[in-house]
Amino acid sequence: MGKQAIGVVGLAVMGRNLALNIESRGHAVSVYNRSREKTDELIAEYPDKKLVPAFTLEDFVESLEKPRRILLMVKAGEGTDATIASLKPLLDKGDILIDGGNTHFTDTIRRNQELAKAGLHFIGTGVSGGEEGALKGPSIMPGGQREAYDLVAPILTEIAAKAPDGEPCVAYMGPDGAGHFVKMVHNGIEYGDMQLIAESYAVLKQVVGLSNEELGKVYTEWNQGELDSYLIEITSKIFSKKDEETGKDLVDVILDRAAQKGTGKWTSQNALDLGAPLPLITEAVFARVLSSLKDQRVAASKVLEGPQAKPLEGGKRDEFIEAVRRALYLSKVISYAQGFAQLRAASEEYKWDLDFGTIAKIFRAGCIIRARFLQKITDAYSKDKAIANLLLDPYFRDIAKNYQSALREVVVAAINAGVPVPAFASAVAYFDAYRSERLPANLVQAQRDFFGAHTFERTDKPGSFHANWS
Amino acid sequence: MGKQAIGVVGLAVMGRNLALNIESRGHAVSVYNRSREKTDELIAEYPDKKLVPAFTLEDFVESLEKPRRILLMVKAGEGTDATIASLKPLLDKGDILIDGGNTHFTDTIRRNQELAKAGLHFIGTGVSGGEEGALKGPSIMPGGQREAYDLVAPILTEIAAKAPDGEPCVAYMGPDGAGHFVKMVHNGIEYGDMQLIAESYAVLKQVVGLSNEELGKVYTEWNQGELDSYLIEITSKIFSKKDEETGKDLVDVILDRAAQKGTGKWTSQNALDLGAPLPLITEAVFARVLSSLKDQRVAASKVLEGPQAKPLEGGKRDEFIEAVRRALYLSKVISYAQGFAQLRAASEEYKWDLDFGTIAKIFRAGCIIRARFLQKITDAYSKDKAIANLLLDPYFRDIAKNYQSALREVVVAAINAGVPVPAFASAVAYFDAYRSERLPANLVQAQRDFFGAHTFERTDKPGSFHANWS
Repeated sequence: MGKQAIGVVGLAVMGRNLALNIESRGHAVSVYNRSREKTDELIAEYPDKKLVPAFTLEDFVESLEKPRRILLMVKAGEGTDATIASLKPLLDKGDILIDGGNTHFTDTIRRNQELAKAGLHFIGTGVSGGEEGALKGPSIMPGGQREAYDLVAPILTEIAAKAPDGEPCVAYMGPDGAGHFVKMVHNGIEYGDMQLIAESYAVLKQVVGLSNEELGKVYTEWNQGELDSYLIEITSKIFSKKDEETGKDLVDVILDRAAQKGTGKWTSQNALDLGAPLPLITEAVFARVLSSLKDQRVAASKVLEGPQAKPLEGGKRDEFIEAVRRALYLSKVISYAQGFAQLRAASEEYKWDLDFGTIAKIFRAGCIIRARFLQKITDAYSKDKAIANLLLDPYFRDIAKNYQSALREVVVAAINAGVPVPAFASAVAYFDAYRSERLPANLVQAQRDFFGAHTFERTDKPGSFHANWS
Repeated sequence: MGKQAIGVVGLAVMGRNLALNIESRGHAVSVYNRSREKTDELIAEYPDKKLVPAFTLEDFVESLEKPRRILLMVKAGEGTDATIASLKPLLDKGDILIDGGNTHFTDTIRRNQELAKAGLHFIGTGVSGGEEGALKGPSIMPGGQREAYDLVAPILTEIAAKAPDGEPCVAYMGPDGAGHFVKMVHNGIEYGDMQLIAESYAVLKQVVGLSNEELGKVYTEWNQGELDSYLIEITSKIFSKKDEETGKDLVDVILDRAAQKGTGKWTSQNALDLGAPLPLITEAVFARVLSSLKDQRVAASKVLEGPQAKPLEGGKRDEFIEAVRRALYLSKVISYAQGFAQLRAASEEYKWDLDFGTIAKIFRAGCIIRARFLQKITDAYSKDKAIANLLLDPYFRDIAKNYQSALREVVVAAINAGVPVPAFASAVAYFDAYRSERLPANLVQAQRDFFGAHTFERTDKPGSFHANWS
């Protein structure tokens, strides 16, 4: 019996779909799961596919060509460590473990270094696109040893999503934790995108007074233009979905408590560690948390008054809807500018030499944030690889110039109507701060020197200074 | 020779000043520093004080009454661990180590548990008030074993700051890391206060067009009213300080790059871990980071255009200045509401049983955020210990009711003038979100269920549901 070029450990939905994806490209795939039921189920469901089950890790490892390529799709954290510990004694030098789970990049750095001591390669890879993406073509963000990546690249390239221009959405991100880091920031950006869309929905509903049917049409129309993206597309569809039980619009039946799995939180916490300003995504993370405090909000709504939102009328409606579209697009630009600045800070801090243009490229298909607009980011880095912030690129600069009055108008209208727009408002504040030659931080430094002798710098010469304030 | 009731390890400025503070209350104090120069200097400078030098840890430990009380004022982190490791073999059961450094509360929890196994007590205490506070009376936030606290309480009570009503600003916070946690949130709140004042300064300068002299007068006046606080007081003084070298107003000579020592960052990262919404303080932390990117800002200011701020005229000026005062006070209320909600979440998560009213009480003097307004927080918790959020208290509710139009007006004016007000804007967004019975998070949940089958809850019945979206 021949040996397989790759095997998958962990047959929950993501692992199973990735195995099927690989198999669909003409490869036989060894499959293993800790409890044999999942393996049996998979084989029973697809008896004709080239899936080769193993019921012990020994048999599984034995069934693979050398150097072995093993894709781990197990529960992130202790599950991954336990699986690695069981596999390690069975492997030979040069074998490659690929962790495709939702792993914190610091764990990936640690595992990469530990396994390297034993001569084993370890690739941590982001896989985005959910269940369907895993099956049909995800966006794949691998990091680890370059030589190990080269040995798995052919298969990853085959199973990856293809961008509109046919390019596969996979590329080597960088050493050790780079792949999982990029996936983390992808998810943070996803939080920002979703919150911005939610705020546009709140404004269109509460300030403009649009019905669900009208909302569906607006997002459908927006999806034809520069906002063209997967998230806008599904948003447009959501508004026409009926609840099968009540016949009501399903969106109105869904409880307004947003859940989260923690990757947005990681992104914000890392930005704080790096000293990379990421206020918009962080507002989005806190907005989800605040939404989850439903009972408190219901109680507060009865005692905390605010202004009444008055729906707009007539011609002003269309103009304002266009302003919301512009506000959404510019805020999205500002959010990505922050996210990509975080990637730059990480690349320097962890010495990864990330290629930001390529990162935007592999986000163009397969993943949740796929969007036409990502090409503009790739273009910006093609023109100037060293650009400090995307807002400085001519295309984005023009968007900022032309759309900022709309963004300001929408935030002002929301504030006057009492509609919370934390991410839109944070976008304006970041934009105005980033373009401020002078911020009031001189006062902060004066205060710090006053109460704690923390010293300050001067505008007219280098050095640290302390004043005798009292 | 008699033995001393307490000793201090680490004679940098904070340790030395605390030793002098304790001595000034009539106690002889053993003092030790790793390098003997600092000890020699201290003794040489104060030959008549009851400071008893030791030059080995053995002699130092030997010089103390049992159970020994040892205040560690060493560099947080590895410095603290190294000092504890050196001291541990010299101590007897029941001895008490007190860490007064700027320690992350998770380290304090770990050390408390490790030392408890050896029968040693460990108190982690926040000490706020800077060098001067340490010498004359800081605000002190101790956490650890209750019985150990009782043994050091008399001395801590003597050296603590006294509130206007004479009460000492020290109290037992709770077990293990509670003291350092409270100090961390204190510092986060301090970041928020300073950023809010900085934004009020930017608005008064750029929107109203006030001179430094006028600014000094405004803050002096504000310090007479409900904003009465240490930070407003020093702000009022900063504007009249001249630079000795150039004769210019010093505030204009200070570079607008704010530094930080990381406790604000810790507060935000912990809030993300706890799932406690802390957007305002987090915006303040990111604002400092953004200010530090001075070179990028200067470059961006040349290419990113914004609206021109037009100074207000005549009678509108005074009205608007009052609006800024109200905006500042309400934003401060909202910031503290978030900070105290974080304390509540931590108290539940770590099982500390924090007394929020007492915490506000010991902030009333000695520390950087000391302010008249803290009494209102104590009052709120006296009325209702279980209140979920300070905004629900009748006093703060009325402030919100009466001042929100001013806050909205100021944020709108700043946005229209292109003046960044991230913390003010975040305050409005939080307020409006917190009082929203319904947020657009239903759309977020619909999206999550659409692309990832993450399920949603319904408004009409309990349970988890998944829709067939496609």
